Amino acid sequence: MNYAVFGTGVVGRTLAAKLATQGHKVTIGTRDVERTLAQTDSEESFAAWSAAQPDIALATFADAAATADTVVNATAGTSSLAALRAAGAENLHGKLLIDVSNPLDFSRGMPPTLDPVGTDSLGEQIQRAFPEARVVKTLNTMNCSVMVEPGLVPGPHNVFLCGNDAEAKERTAELLLSFGWPQDALIDLGDITAARATEQALPLWVQLWGVVGHGNFNFRIQQAD
Amino acid sequence: MNYAVFGTGVVGRTLAAKLATQGHKVTIGTRDVERTLAQTDSEESFAAWSAAQPDIALATFADAAATADTVVNATAGTSSLAALRAAGAENLHGKLLIDVSNPLDFSRGMPPTLDPVGTDSLGEQIQRAFPEARVVKTLNTMNCSVMVEPGLVPGPHNVFLCGNDAEAKERTAELLLSFGWPQDALIDLGDITAARATEQALPLWVQLWGVVGHGNFNFRIQQAD
Repeated sequence: MNYAVFGTGVVGRTLAAKLATQGHKVTIGTRDVERTLAQTDSEESFAAWSAAQPDIALATFADAAATADTVVNATAGTSSLAALRAAGAENLHGKLLIDVSNPLDFSRGMPPTLDPVGTDSLGEQIQRAFPEARVVKTLNTMNCSVMVEPGLVPGPHNVFLCGNDAEAKERTAELLLSFGWPQDALIDLGDITAARATEQALPLWVQLWGVVGHGNFNFRIQQAD
Repeated sequence: MNYAVFGTGVVGRTLAAKLATQGHKVTIGTRDVERTLAQTDSEESFAAWSAAQPDIALATFADAAATADTVVNATAGTSSLAALRAAGAENLHGKLLIDVSNPLDFSRGMPPTLDPVGTDSLGEQIQRAFPEARVVKTLNTMNCSVMVEPGLVPGPHNVFLCGNDAEAKERTAELLLSFGWPQDALIDLGDITAARATEQALPLWVQLWGVVGHGNFNFRIQQAD
């Protein structure tokens, strides 16, 4: 498959590296290629990371999406819509758009708050803004290392997915299985409005992260038969 | 102990019955005793339920709280502040106030939304409104049957608690242990601001309830060492 992964931070890098390891063609999408290559504000500069990942291309959002069959949105939630608009609706048309982002607002400090919250979600905003894209919200309730290596957390635990298009969810499920998620770990929450539920789990995740002291944990839904 | 349980619905009844079974003195608090006894809008009328629970008294919020050493708020979240104001700050002063409610707004249909949400929570609103009460938010992330009988859900699963007063949280923890929760099931999320996190887990709980098809499930935090 040919993936465009939007976002040059740790989430985008982690997903891109995993997909490349699996033999997929991967292009990371960014607003400004030159600026991204000059970026030094994260722990490891993008250029240094990229040099060790010769199979992963870097391109503008539009160029990355144009040739991809699947787009993964791993940008910061507050800039996701801008990134997708820069990609262009024509480059998202009919494509699977896997949204792993959360609309976390850190402007008021820690803990972050959500915007939108309650009667709307970023997943729905994206689906409304790009009605011809097939948005599936998933993986947004855990650390990125766990997304691509669920075995980092021992025992059974869950990954949620939701979206309006059944075939898009099936393809997403196949991708999750390829990442090592067991079939029975997947919980389909229904249509894209369920993104409200998983995005609103983030404040609890952030609080638990403080208690646990690291990111290798996840939600497990324990249930009676 | 002497408990006032606020709320005549299924959550209040379940908690009151459990506490009475444990030998505690229990009074259910309500706005209007006569109206509650005439209430027929729930599956089982309060009068019929109450007749089978001769050890559980019914009184106004104020009368129930006046003699109690612990108050449990199990009212609908949208009327919790009114109920506690009716009880009177003087009757809550210095007392453990266990808040199991959620500010769910069903006025726009299903799924319910939260109000407040994001930068505030009902737990915090209650603590601010009654600064001399010692508010502990707990048990609000599960069905009431699971609250008092955690064994209904097989395997390990968790109950969160938060609040500003360490001794109040210790007493709440003792109550949870008496309900059958193992010590390692309890996760202390910190001060009362963490109520934002557990209340915002409700949309996911509601969505999961639709998927699972019954209420005997709960969140488990699965983690690496």
